Amino acid sequence: MIVLFTDFGPAGPYVGQVKAVLAREAAQQPVIDLLHAAPAMNPRASAYLLAALAPSIQGEATFVCVVDPGVGTDRRPLALRADGRWFVGPDNGLLDVVGKRARQAEWWEITWRPEVLSATFHGRDLFAPVAARLARGDAPPGRRCDSPLGARNWPADLPEVVYLDPYGNAATGLRGSIVGTDVVLRANERCFQPVTTFGDAPAGTAIWYVNSNAHAELAVSEGSAAGSCGLGIGTPVSVLEECP
Amino acid sequence: MIVLFTDFGPAGPYVGQVKAVLAREAAQQPVIDLLHAAPAMNPRASAYLLAALAPSIQGEATFVCVVDPGVGTDRRPLALRADGRWFVGPDNGLLDVVGKRARQAEWWEITWRPEVLSATFHGRDLFAPVAARLARGDAPPGRRCDSPLGARNWPADLPEVVYLDPYGNAATGLRGSIVGTDVVLRANERCFQPVTTFGDAPAGTAIWYVNSNAHAELAVSEGSAAGSCGLGIGTPVSVLEECP
Amino acid sequence: MIVLFTDFGPAGPYVGQVKAVLAREAAQQPVIDLLHAAPAMNPRASAYLLAALAPSIQGEATFVCVVDPGVGTDRRPLALRADGRWFVGPDNGLLDVVGKRARQAEWWEITWRPEVLSATFHGRDLFAPVAARLARGDAPPGRRCDSPLGARNWPADLPEVVYLDPYGNAATGLRGSIVGTDVVLRANERCFQPVTTFGDAPAGTAIWYVNSNAHAELAVSEGSAAGSCGLGIGTPVSVLEECP
Repeated sequence: MIVLFTDFGPAGPYVGQVKAVLAREAAQQPVIDLLHAAPAMNPRASAYLLAALAPSIQGEATFVCVVDPGVGTDRRPLALRADGRWFVGPDNGLLDVVGKRARQAEWWEITWRPEVLSATFHGRDLFAPVAARLARGDAPPGRRCDSPLGARNWPADLPEVVYLDPYGNAATGLRGSIVGTDVVLRANERCFQPVTTFGDAPAGTAIWYVNSNAHAELAVSEGSAAGSCGLGIGTPVSVLEECP
Repeated sequence: MIVLFTDFGPAGPYVGQVKAVLAREAAQQPVIDLLHAAPAMNPRASAYLLAALAPSIQGEATFVCVVDPGVGTDRRPLALRADGRWFVGPDNGLLDVVGKRARQAEWWEITWRPEVLSATFHGRDLFAPVAARLARGDAPPGRRCDSPLGARNWPADLPEVVYLDPYGNAATGLRGSIVGTDVVLRANERCFQPVTTFGDAPAGTAIWYVNSNAHAELAVSEGSAAGSCGLGIGTPVSVLEECP
Repeated sequence: MIVLFTDFGPAGPYVGQVKAVLAREAAQQPVIDLLHAAPAMNPRASAYLLAALAPSIQGEATFVCVVDPGVGTDRRPLALRADGRWFVGPDNGLLDVVGKRARQAEWWEITWRPEVLSATFHGRDLFAPVAARLARGDAPPGRRCDSPLGARNWPADLPEVVYLDPYGNAATGLRGSIVGTDVVLRANERCFQPVTTFGDAPAGTAIWYVNSNAHAELAVSEGSAAGSCGLGIGTPVSVLEECP
């Protein structure tokens, strides 16, 4: 299975071009659009979101990861083998959190280049063909390299909003397991009370819960936390014993 | 064929997670995204829209239907066999209109539960695996139950706007066959004149026609009925002999 | 491979209905969503965009092209064989630029009609079944006809914005090969300087480059050209030696 995680937007022509390459070069592989609405041009928030979503894909998979504002510059293309699965993407931190949270992580610098490489669309020209090879069982076309994690040294969990979903719920970079239960989350001077699911609180209540990807998520019951609490990508979130 | 009808939004990560489950558990089945922009958290409008769109899918099919604001509460999961096709979804009315309009309808309560069931994403954890089984030919993992139609007793046709398409056309819950011809539709104090297709009226005219799914639909020729007439989900529509 | 290029929007129910037809009638063919955000009801801008994007799909392919405000009127359905690939769509100019730029182009009027043909959705009822036949290797169900290019006589390159991508970059109808290098592009009284990729200019700079589909594209480094320069579909673009 090949899984796509990008900031291409669901509407644009970029996803289709990547999929056409995969249909030619890995015809037997199902291709899953995991997310094309990753925080645009924001590898840091996207890295936490990728690490949250990737475990929801069961079994073997090769992830094509493209949030790549530095495309065409000298940033390296990487392949990461993390707990038995492949992740391909730019060396800008996008793969760091998956690597950091993995029990086993091995890194490669991709040195192969296609005959024709556009300056602005390595997702199509470089990452997709490499992913097709890995999904077919080939070795990464490059050389083993040291972990790039030290370069940025991002934490394993991030106390910030990293994603707003289509309902206006705000996922954080904090795993539920490290937040604990019975605590209150605070963001933008609003307190969010712990619940299990949406129906556990009256309409309009600011709530938080461990979402279906095991991360802490802020919401407003029957409403939009993004809209009514002014949350956005990067809004800091704090964990408190009780609302001050 | 497995057909998806949800309010997940085309941009979010929920569709991909459902499809990854289906790719594992029903690999031979084509999966069709019928709509991921169903009226959000609105099972009633969505029910009429589902009943309008489902007949456009020819032949055998299993529909995964998720507009589920009560996810994680005690609302039951259901399977409906309607005129030879399967519909899986929550017992909140979403399947009622398909059931009501069917010549033959049989209902099951799904009692099977997965090993891991998140509180907020039964589309991925419960409805998709059940649909995979039904599409493979298995029996519904549950027990036959009475029709749930009486609980809500919604009409077979709904004189309201139930969907705004990307062009701003407004589909109603009224089948064309019961509206008749040569009548005028009225919504938001505007009259819509009957036509066969968009090109039959000068630009800017408020028109209605039987759409490609056999339902009455309001539009503005070369414009947006949603924008220029202020139509939204739930706007009442009346059928008149002539414009008052 | 069957490739879809439409203005249906990524959110609506139209794409899924087309794909359900293709899954029944050309089950062995992969189906690629190239773009569903073509300039809505604008066959002229869409024609240049289609001609830009089509070469990015390698090898044999049948394109289903639907930007069709005249659906249901007497505009003809066409099939175009251009340099070994099929394009199916309405005779409103949408296929003209592909035909004009092709080394070899042959045109057919499609005379076949399905048993049931809705007035407003020929993408599903007519173009998709015809594309399925062509992809299977059948002859076009119609008769050879003269080239329709003379009717509109559009130029091979168009000095206008024809597409805004999800990042706010503005693609033009001008091939990079005819624009030349070291020139400045001007639009909306703003000058755009030539670069190779986004990282070549400081944040906020108005830039242009030959995009990954070999067309001139306007952008603002780390920003949105659509937003900050007020560019839209149809904005004229001029090619200058230097900024006045």
